[in-house]
Amino acid sequence: MVGIPVPKDVVTLSPDGLSEAPRDRHIILDFTFEAADAIAPGVLQSACGKMAHTWICAAVRDIQAGHADALVTAPINKEALHLAGVHFPGHTELIAHLTGVSNPCMAFYSPKLIVSLATIHEALSEVPRLLSAPSLLHIIRLTQAACRKFGIASPRMGVLAFNPHAGEHGLFGDEESRIIVPAIDQANAEGINAVGPLVPDTAFTWLNTNPAHPPFDAYVAMYHDQGLIPFKMVAFDTGVNVTLGLPIIRTSPDHGTAFDLAWQGKASPNSLFSAITLAARMARPTAL
Amino acid sequence: MVGIPVPKDVVTLSPDGLSEAPRDRHIILDFTFEAADAIAPGVLQSACGKMAHTWICAAVRDIQAGHADALVTAPINKEALHLAGVHFPGHTELIAHLTGVSNPCMAFYSPKLIVSLATIHEALSEVPRLLSAPSLLHIIRLTQAACRKFGIASPRMGVLAFNPHAGEHGLFGDEESRIIVPAIDQANAEGINAVGPLVPDTAFTWLNTNPAHPPFDAYVAMYHDQGLIPFKMVAFDTGVNVTLGLPIIRTSPDHGTAFDLAWQGKASPNSLFSAITLAARMARPTAL
Repeated sequence: MVGIPVPKDVVTLSPDGLSEAPRDRHIILDFTFEAADAIAPGVLQSACGKMAHTWICAAVRDIQAGHADALVTAPINKEALHLAGVHFPGHTELIAHLTGVSNPCMAFYSPKLIVSLATIHEALSEVPRLLSAPSLLHIIRLTQAACRKFGIASPRMGVLAFNPHAGEHGLFGDEESRIIVPAIDQANAEGINAVGPLVPDTAFTWLNTNPAHPPFDAYVAMYHDQGLIPFKMVAFDTGVNVTLGLPIIRTSPDHGTAFDLAWQGKASPNSLFSAITLAARMARPTAL
Repeated sequence: MVGIPVPKDVVTLSPDGLSEAPRDRHIILDFTFEAADAIAPGVLQSACGKMAHTWICAAVRDIQAGHADALVTAPINKEALHLAGVHFPGHTELIAHLTGVSNPCMAFYSPKLIVSLATIHEALSEVPRLLSAPSLLHIIRLTQAACRKFGIASPRMGVLAFNPHAGEHGLFGDEESRIIVPAIDQANAEGINAVGPLVPDTAFTWLNTNPAHPPFDAYVAMYHDQGLIPFKMVAFDTGVNVTLGLPIIRTSPDHGTAFDLAWQGKASPNSLFSAITLAARMARPTAL
């Protein structure tokens, strides 16, 4: 459809053919796309949003049926999805809905840094209301389980504070004593190696001063930018977005569609390569 | 007093001698400190807090009298200050009080990154209430003035958003449209080159991907950790804390007293060196 030659060792099948596909070959499912000839690269089009939705649903169905081991999604355009009448904020929420999960966790993986987020696309003023010891404990448990799938047998996790200086003993903010410490205590009682609340502004200096000796295998951040400012500083272009808490493995690049670069040969595939590699490792943690 | 030999070209004077001191010599003011022999390094002592307070007050007095051009403070122990009955959270608040300033701004300088903070030691949940367009405009103006003292003639300033994705067009949080955009508009109307609100999690990736080409000369962060997570990642050990909005120049290292390293010869003086160099540059921007 897009005019890229298919390598000889790749099998092309119809969308329903995956169940009979050879397990040792690379496979392309060739979906019929009537509007293909009318598609212009880098332009918002509802037909593209519709097909993205169709393909995601098919992929989740095939994985749940056992025909594939993991889902690696390319970026989608949220506005195109909306134009097609699909009203999910993004992949994560759509896939959670398709798999019947209400509280997935967004995490980011790179060889330099692993971060999971206790809250994501929320007004920062709402975060204190959204954080709770049980929800944070859930995130800590998911992060430990993910680390094991990443190949870290006994993960040590750093849990960040919410307030500057970790609240300076309650002087500014009490989320540490009220929410974060109880969650860590409960995690420790379950045998999970979680430490904190860590002072946020010094938690990531080791990435510059001593990158070969990470104090923790993974970090749990309380809000989106607390985790993603450091992550995107050290892992831009190679980072992988991983959704935790789903019944299937799902990774994706940590960037968007970049319509401004579409079809110019300039976009970097590095993050997508990393996403595929990580999904393979998570599907077969002992094989790599 | 501390047993360090004084170099030959340094003049030692009594605390009141500064007005008659030669301007072209290095000078040590030798304060009488009755308790000196009883002082143990690395231990919390009210006598030390008392002397720190005395020396800071004397330094501010001498600078305001025109006997010196800038104040470089070493770290002080806030608990020792409290033990001595001095109830300021730290240097910045004490010096603001001594110079009659009610709204100083904490900024951080390094050759790699300059960041000023719109709010500092506050509960993060309080920050939305503390931010306002006028207070932010004040910070933008101070940051521009400071950049000029750092030797940047026409500073370009990046103003960060408060919410993730800069609020995604009001979808999560409205601090951008309600506070940050009006402050930037007013700054621009005054001829200040300020741009934003910048999406926080990608604002600092250039420090890793393209450090030789900063998109902005300085950044205005909305809260403590938004500015200090990236700053301490790239400038730990060489960063300088600069107080803006005072009638005097004041810099300090960006670290604390480190009682655990006291008198062992292990502490790094790099940040203090940087603080002295920057103060000298700010006092004589055209001479360097």
